[in-house]
Amino acid sequence: MPDPTVPAAAEPAEFDVVGIGNALVDVIAHANEDFIAREALVKGSMTLIETERAVSLYKALGSAVEMSGGSAANTMCGVASFGGRAAYIGKVCDDDLGQVFGHDLRAVGITFRPGGPENDTPTGRCIIVVTPDAERTMNTYLGVSSLLCAPDIDAATVAAGKVLYMEGYLFDRDEAKEAFRTAARIAHAHGREVSLTLSDSFCVDRHRSDFRALVADEVDILFGNEDELTSLYEVTDFDEAVAMVRSDCALAVITRGASGSVIVTGDGVVSVPAEPVERVLDTTGAGDLFASGFLYGYTNGMSLPECGRLGSIAAAEVISHVGARPLVDLRKLV
Amino acid sequence: MPDPTVPAAAEPAEFDVVGIGNALVDVIAHANEDFIAREALVKGSMTLIETERAVSLYKALGSAVEMSGGSAANTMCGVASFGGRAAYIGKVCDDDLGQVFGHDLRAVGITFRPGGPENDTPTGRCIIVVTPDAERTMNTYLGVSSLLCAPDIDAATVAAGKVLYMEGYLFDRDEAKEAFRTAARIAHAHGREVSLTLSDSFCVDRHRSDFRALVADEVDILFGNEDELTSLYEVTDFDEAVAMVRSDCALAVITRGASGSVIVTGDGVVSVPAEPVERVLDTTGAGDLFASGFLYGYTNGMSLPECGRLGSIAAAEVISHVGARPLVDLRKLV
Repeated sequence: MPDPTVPAAAEPAEFDVVGIGNALVDVIAHANEDFIAREALVKGSMTLIETERAVSLYKALGSAVEMSGGSAANTMCGVASFGGRAAYIGKVCDDDLGQVFGHDLRAVGITFRPGGPENDTPTGRCIIVVTPDAERTMNTYLGVSSLLCAPDIDAATVAAGKVLYMEGYLFDRDEAKEAFRTAARIAHAHGREVSLTLSDSFCVDRHRSDFRALVADEVDILFGNEDELTSLYEVTDFDEAVAMVRSDCALAVITRGASGSVIVTGDGVVSVPAEPVERVLDTTGAGDLFASGFLYGYTNGMSLPECGRLGSIAAAEVISHVGARPLVDLRKLV
Repeated sequence: MPDPTVPAAAEPAEFDVVGIGNALVDVIAHANEDFIAREALVKGSMTLIETERAVSLYKALGSAVEMSGGSAANTMCGVASFGGRAAYIGKVCDDDLGQVFGHDLRAVGITFRPGGPENDTPTGRCIIVVTPDAERTMNTYLGVSSLLCAPDIDAATVAAGKVLYMEGYLFDRDEAKEAFRTAARIAHAHGREVSLTLSDSFCVDRHRSDFRALVADEVDILFGNEDELTSLYEVTDFDEAVAMVRSDCALAVITRGASGSVIVTGDGVVSVPAEPVERVLDTTGAGDLFASGFLYGYTNGMSLPECGRLGSIAAAEVISHVGARPLVDLRKLV
């Protein structure tokens, strides 16, 4: 009699990708380097902030624009923009920003599973300061998004996705780590693949051993950039990190900014060039959208170089304007 | 003994312009002509909608961006962007959108007087659909903004502005009409000038006799476009409308889209060309920003043609991008 938790073959999938992440609305403003220095921000990274700091930073900030964000949510929007089928699990409050977040997912055809309700904790927001060099510095007030826990993981949704995609940013709380393991086990029990993005080298630093264990135990496809990968393995040499990830995961996709990306498998390394961009205006979402193109291609049977090319196209589109989600139909750019 | 309500000369002014209007956050999305037809929207105009319609229209709408808006508030942002001193009176709720609205005014140095608190009625929002021809179609859920009434008018603020600027959009409720008259009387009692923008030809249609009385009794400077002015006087001929406004107001500033604008005084008519724009992306805020340039120039002692030129510069900037507030320092464009 077969083990019911390990089916012989996966059933037809309702979704190409199911994402889990911090559900955030971005508050985007432009500021110069003086502002970064004066507010003691860690340029180019993501810093978690509490209510008081969120209030004082927002007060110091110039006029802003509000747009739905969240790393894995941005990735799901990219998948949908390519024509893929995506679902998203993440927590919002029933306040203005929570309604905005839910609307903007559903408006592009994404199935949104917000998890169970919580009382009073507001929807999370990410204060993004874009400097004249197009670099983004993120300061995240997690709000209710960080309360994601195992019971919020809708098993049927996870089971219905070819690939589960999880965002490392969520990894700051034990409950979220447990939710990740729960989701990964559900996916694997249904013959699905599990992917993870490392999100941020500081986040990897804070939780290195947990990330290492998750990657070794559960992750089939790992996304990250150069800094995150070398931080994960505590090495300075990129090639050494590549060798280490090869023994951990079947597939790793490492972005290297303007130098493009490399796709690492047991068979070797595929290099993918970056797409040319006329003018880089805001690098927010570059990694998120790269992952969206890769995953859309991967779940639709394309070759690895082709998956990488779709990733580069999506990343190029999102860095050519302000905001972390595509402004055009990505399928038209292919 | 002099009449205390009519001082011989105005005291030094703390503000160049004090604006009163509907405090709204814009929800901006792109859609094609099919969407306009399917949702039976009145293209190019502003339609007031109730909660139920706001919910259904938002649901039908694609991904959106949230930015602070409101006609007179946009004008005050323009005045501030030129380097002028502005204050704003309008009602918001203490919800996410209300905080966004207040922040974005204060962030550019505008003194915000939100009036007395109200219970539970949410901050107003304007759902703006931008079509490929750059035309905007606005659907406004007024929320708490429409509850503005005479006690919300901060007399000291109105008294401290060289010019009071009132938005015709507010004119849909009797309480707001009374608030306008109260504000106008305070301004005149302190030797200030009173200006009004007609806002929308449908709004003028709905309240023509009240507008006519307000213009004749209290308005020193009238702003509007061609349609609004001919609607006000129920004539089809523009020159006839110009002759009629000349007998009502000391000064009228009439915009004519790409044909520029005309400034009407007792002495004659000054024509002002529009500034060239490489590509018009979103006409939202064109009239609001024209008024900002004119009022900044006017309150800083410039000639009428120069005031008109500043108006054209501000309008050209705002229609060259999405959103109804300037993205650059307007003083740098002069």
